[in-house]
Amino acid sequence: MSPAPDRTTVAIVGGGPAGLLLSHLLRKRGVDSVVLESRPRERVESRQRAGILEHGTVDALREVGADARMDERGLPHDGFAFHAHGERIGVDMAALTGKAVMIWAQTEVVKDLIALRLEQGEPLLFEAEVLSVSEVDGAVGDGAGLVRYRHGGAEHELRADVVVGTDGFHGVARRAVPDEAVRTYERVYPFSWLGILADAPPSSDELVYARHDRGFALLSMRSPSVTRAYIQVPNGTDPSSWSDDAIWDELEARTALADGSFTLNRGTITDKSVTPMRSFVAEPMRHGRLFLAGDAAHIVPPTGAKGLNLAVADVRVLAEALATWHDTGAQELLDAYSDTALRRVWRGEHFSWTMTTMLHRDPDADPFDDRLALSHLRLIAQSESYRRSIAENYRGLELDL
Amino acid sequence: MSPAPDRTTVAIVGGGPAGLLLSHLLRKRGVDSVVLESRPRERVESRQRAGILEHGTVDALREVGADARMDERGLPHDGFAFHAHGERIGVDMAALTGKAVMIWAQTEVVKDLIALRLEQGEPLLFEAEVLSVSEVDGAVGDGAGLVRYRHGGAEHELRADVVVGTDGFHGVARRAVPDEAVRTYERVYPFSWLGILADAPPSSDELVYARHDRGFALLSMRSPSVTRAYIQVPNGTDPSSWSDDAIWDELEARTALADGSFTLNRGTITDKSVTPMRSFVAEPMRHGRLFLAGDAAHIVPPTGAKGLNLAVADVRVLAEALATWHDTGAQELLDAYSDTALRRVWRGEHFSWTMTTMLHRDPDADPFDDRLALSHLRLIAQSESYRRSIAENYRGLELDL
Repeated sequence: MSPAPDRTTVAIVGGGPAGLLLSHLLRKRGVDSVVLESRPRERVESRQRAGILEHGTVDALREVGADARMDERGLPHDGFAFHAHGERIGVDMAALTGKAVMIWAQTEVVKDLIALRLEQGEPLLFEAEVLSVSEVDGAVGDGAGLVRYRHGGAEHELRADVVVGTDGFHGVARRAVPDEAVRTYERVYPFSWLGILADAPPSSDELVYARHDRGFALLSMRSPSVTRAYIQVPNGTDPSSWSDDAIWDELEARTALADGSFTLNRGTITDKSVTPMRSFVAEPMRHGRLFLAGDAAHIVPPTGAKGLNLAVADVRVLAEALATWHDTGAQELLDAYSDTALRRVWRGEHFSWTMTTMLHRDPDADPFDDRLALSHLRLIAQSESYRRSIAENYRGLELDL
Repeated sequence: MSPAPDRTTVAIVGGGPAGLLLSHLLRKRGVDSVVLESRPRERVESRQRAGILEHGTVDALREVGADARMDERGLPHDGFAFHAHGERIGVDMAALTGKAVMIWAQTEVVKDLIALRLEQGEPLLFEAEVLSVSEVDGAVGDGAGLVRYRHGGAEHELRADVVVGTDGFHGVARRAVPDEAVRTYERVYPFSWLGILADAPPSSDELVYARHDRGFALLSMRSPSVTRAYIQVPNGTDPSSWSDDAIWDELEARTALADGSFTLNRGTITDKSVTPMRSFVAEPMRHGRLFLAGDAAHIVPPTGAKGLNLAVADVRVLAEALATWHDTGAQELLDAYSDTALRRVWRGEHFSWTMTTMLHRDPDADPFDDRLALSHLRLIAQSESYRRSIAENYRGLELDL
């Protein structure tokens, strides 16, 4: 590894998928950057997260050359299905919108982006704990931001024309924005997801989103031999309080079809975890020389698979804006970044909220809410226009939304 | 007027648009009925209510011959518009769905249906106060229901094979269903509509549904010289507490477009009233020989103009079912009535709730809710699929939903 760098054009705080992809998009455009990631490489490469890539996300991975393993092992999906109280509602995305999605785990995306970055010899530091981001007030090009970080037992300073915070919801970067300069929007949901990985072939070629009186369930996959699945559980649930059999029984009950045509494949559960559900947006997504992208600026509940895809869309817009400024000095795109990104973010927030409220049983809901959800699901079944709209949101809208 | 009748095939409790239309649809099919209405004719003919007829509602009025004045004076509308915080979003219903709606006031519909019924010499009693509905337990054709009512200073009894309750939310008919046989769903909204009639030409060819930080507004019309308009006000508002100027100012502020292209026409306000907003469904819509239709079984908030249209759809389904039973003895359609009607009712409930929450400012909402509403409106502007789905719901879905 090269010695700790002290000057760059773009300091990227956070080496998750958003930060890593941004570094690659910038390199393609001739813009230097340094990526600082607080966790060890092994940890970054082993976190189980999202796994559904919109076509635009797939395009971005292709652009930076992180597509070989995805094309070999990823699973293109033309559609998905709802199981609504025993009835199947198919959404044929490809037929409705001409586009598909790719099942390819975020953890695999991250492995490829890391390997590529290191192969290129470009600066990417693990176990580089960012202590503070400062001196970001003021215009881009007129002074530099300061990132202080600890790495290899010593403290370092990195100066950059622009600092990008891609360090997640709990990250340091957003804290550099004065309270009075940011407005936040938040919703915490009264349920969580208990997620499992299991050595079991997927029960269905397509993802299954189920709504049942017992709550939400989702059947997904990681490969032709590995199932990824989730059930709605109360907040604060200890994953170890659920036996493997109880999880399979619950998945089976919630995803069953009334005509008996659906069979759940069981197998050995290799991972169990509980994820709370949150909606969050911090506006604007820029403060002076600091730009926020991905979870550092916004969180969606995972229903609808928008989190990773919104982060990728952010850095695609930001990379273009930074490259234009770098090449020509023009700052219009940088000035437009926050508004441009937020339009898509709020689309994702609305879609994720819509899917979440439609598919979960809110313990605080009254029976009227439950009936609204059923009528909503029936509309998807009955109206091709509405089904197409859902499919468009799921496969991802155009970048210039 | 004929003497108080004491036996009929179908006793219709409530002479609003649902009950009156049902009597005409039944007559066309050779089924006798008696309509009992508690209020005087003048009162029924002067109540200001809904005014937007789905194409299916228009078809039903044509079928019974109540279309002459509608065709002469009604205003066919091919679309409507949202004004979302100063931006106009047009919804071209005719282009998107091939169907239009008709602006023709419920009060005019009722006048025509009454005149026609009296012209035919068919039983329709005003100031006939129904005291009770009973003996409705049991199968259709196996015994008769009993309607006791007061009319012309005396009490009367009417026996009927079937009793239909079309006497509204506060009516007597629903009370004949034992509590344990009915399940209700309800939502009361934290805002009301202050509605006006004014001698002013409509400000726009199309209806305008506005969302503004100050709250909802709706610009509608009754004729080329009469404006019907509404603003969201707090529950419990006294209409006389709003001066005419204050109402016009508020309508102007809420419907203004940022580019200044919209001008509000003002005029003399001739009527002011405040309407609370409620969602309500009672299931099932049948108990033995008693069938409920329209507001007696379900209420929607007026945003979306579904109340009258759902009532008309109910009685269209019910008339067909009663005629089939009357002609052949087959009860399958009667047995299916509640489920058939409720599918459409819940579609209307979901659409009305969606429009209401999207367009009003809930005083209890947090900023996240407000942003969801804006993102929802932007989706209508951007997605033709979603716009078409909204248009389909607005102009009315097929009867066999």
